[in-house]
Amino acid sequence: MAVTTTNRRVVLDRLPDGALSADCFRSDAAPTPEPGPGEALCRTILLSLDPANRAWMRGRTYRDQLRAGDVMAGYTLSEVVDPGDGPYPAGTIVAGEAGWQEYAALPVAGLQPVVPRGPLSHHMSVLGITGLTAYFGLLDVGRPQAGDTVAVSAAAGATGNVVGQLAKAAGARVVGISGADAKNRVLEEQLGFDVTVNHRGNLRAALKEACPEGIDVYFDNVGGAVLDAVLPRMAERGRIVCCGTVSQYEQPGMPAGAVGVPSLVITRRLRMEGFIVLDYADRFAAAEADLAARLADGALRALEDVVDGLDAAPAALVGMLAGENVGKRLVRVAEDPA
Amino acid sequence: MAVTTTNRRVVLDRLPDGALSADCFRSDAAPTPEPGPGEALCRTILLSLDPANRAWMRGRTYRDQLRAGDVMAGYTLSEVVDPGDGPYPAGTIVAGEAGWQEYAALPVAGLQPVVPRGPLSHHMSVLGITGLTAYFGLLDVGRPQAGDTVAVSAAAGATGNVVGQLAKAAGARVVGISGADAKNRVLEEQLGFDVTVNHRGNLRAALKEACPEGIDVYFDNVGGAVLDAVLPRMAERGRIVCCGTVSQYEQPGMPAGAVGVPSLVITRRLRMEGFIVLDYADRFAAAEADLAARLADGALRALEDVVDGLDAAPAALVGMLAGENVGKRLVRVAEDPA
Repeated sequence: MAVTTTNRRVVLDRLPDGALSADCFRSDAAPTPEPGPGEALCRTILLSLDPANRAWMRGRTYRDQLRAGDVMAGYTLSEVVDPGDGPYPAGTIVAGEAGWQEYAALPVAGLQPVVPRGPLSHHMSVLGITGLTAYFGLLDVGRPQAGDTVAVSAAAGATGNVVGQLAKAAGARVVGISGADAKNRVLEEQLGFDVTVNHRGNLRAALKEACPEGIDVYFDNVGGAVLDAVLPRMAERGRIVCCGTVSQYEQPGMPAGAVGVPSLVITRRLRMEGFIVLDYADRFAAAEADLAARLADGALRALEDVVDGLDAAPAALVGMLAGENVGKRLVRVAEDPA
Repeated sequence: MAVTTTNRRVVLDRLPDGALSADCFRSDAAPTPEPGPGEALCRTILLSLDPANRAWMRGRTYRDQLRAGDVMAGYTLSEVVDPGDGPYPAGTIVAGEAGWQEYAALPVAGLQPVVPRGPLSHHMSVLGITGLTAYFGLLDVGRPQAGDTVAVSAAAGATGNVVGQLAKAAGARVVGISGADAKNRVLEEQLGFDVTVNHRGNLRAALKEACPEGIDVYFDNVGGAVLDAVLPRMAERGRIVCCGTVSQYEQPGMPAGAVGVPSLVITRRLRMEGFIVLDYADRFAAAEADLAARLADGALRALEDVVDGLDAAPAALVGMLAGENVGKRLVRVAEDPA
């Protein structure tokens, strides 16, 4: 496919004032850039949509806050179309942060070459950052033992569904928490979750019924009211893996109130621990190989929710923040190279 | 000293409805008990007052809730006055849970013989459960490194003052948080704290000034608003040792709201971990020897606040919950045996 001279992009037109809506974005076009020194020109194939995209608009996290006028940031899989002065020949598939645009001239130091194993989309779901997040967060931070009860929120999300499958493989009883019965059916029927609960009902009562012996590991993707309901259900020496707070990303300001946490943390000797998957970068290759082997032998299934076309990205992100996705949501910007 | 036939006691007359007040207790007298099978008759020498005393009135913790009509529960140092059929001869000093009374027939299985090292009160302060709580909570859970900033709340309390001294000995910069300037002066002038802040002022601003590089270890004795103020000051990979929630013991019901915790726990890779000192019982002897050596060589000082007479216990507990003590508060029920 020839490189076009025009680069279609989606720009963050304004920071949201309250909930994010698709009209915070605008599409535009700019000349396709030339790679500068140390850069390669990359064509975006797949764009990852992540709850973190919303957090980046709220303030400084592990990266600078996004500003109005920025090309919307996002993780991507791209094909190198002009290697510039760098080491990756044209046709190399690279993971990076091209953002929401068809082309980007990216510093090669920030690119990870990908050796495709099956469909490229797997490298943005089970084998990508959300799969790795599930892997290290569950296995290194949560440390489930056979027979443990492992609960996960946003269980039909990109990370949550992998957490549940890995916990099941570790011999745990797996409880999925999501906001839709239809998603829960997918988790039980297709991915082997033992039981699921819908957080839109009486969550405390549902958790009590689903986890009569308490919860040994809670993998928290959402924070907020779901965490509040889970805390009293934690078993002694339980572990809470703090992975995300998607319930809070649409709230203005910094959420207040740690008041309910420590008394249960003490009495039950809980451990609440935060992590960021990038801290495990030196073990990504080994984890990816492990996940790929599980995928190949059918122990792990890729649950993906692919949206077509860059212009669909704003509505797809807003919808994902509202919980409409089932599995890892991706935007297909271009077809996989043959 | 002869055993009297009358046993003066302080009974929890009613569970508090709101804040605890001294009139929730009543003094009475009962016949001094005879030791039954497996019991020893013990005369109380020192009674420990602990924030946990209040928590025991609120609900089930690691022990059953107290009920109206119970002799008030409490940790004690006693002298065996009638060994019964057990192994401890008369005159043995034993740690146990005699509660708020002059005499108790106690199951010998629940008694720990004490080999006095200096004043008996040291065995209820630095060498007692609060000193051990500081020791294991700080060194095993908090794990300070030389150069770390260690903050501790209720810093002039029984546990807090030992935490600060141990952190200082580990090479940390020590920040004490208390509710009174007079206490803070004691911490700085007598115990070597580097800096102190009064939580009754603008705590966030004071912490920012006192901890410009952030807090690496926060030893939390209080929970509540102080924890809320400390959280945003935590440095990356900081550790929060959840030891007590004295700010909450007077609040009705279970405190709500974990909402503010996980986003900071994640972004800064914090670890919040609860512990109960009794879990370390098999290491108490070694820890006591270590603490006693530090006390002997002057590296550690015993900060004690001793109140005279069993009848003073109710007001002394209420006052301690309001923060009036400086150091470990004890009630002297009888003189140390010669």
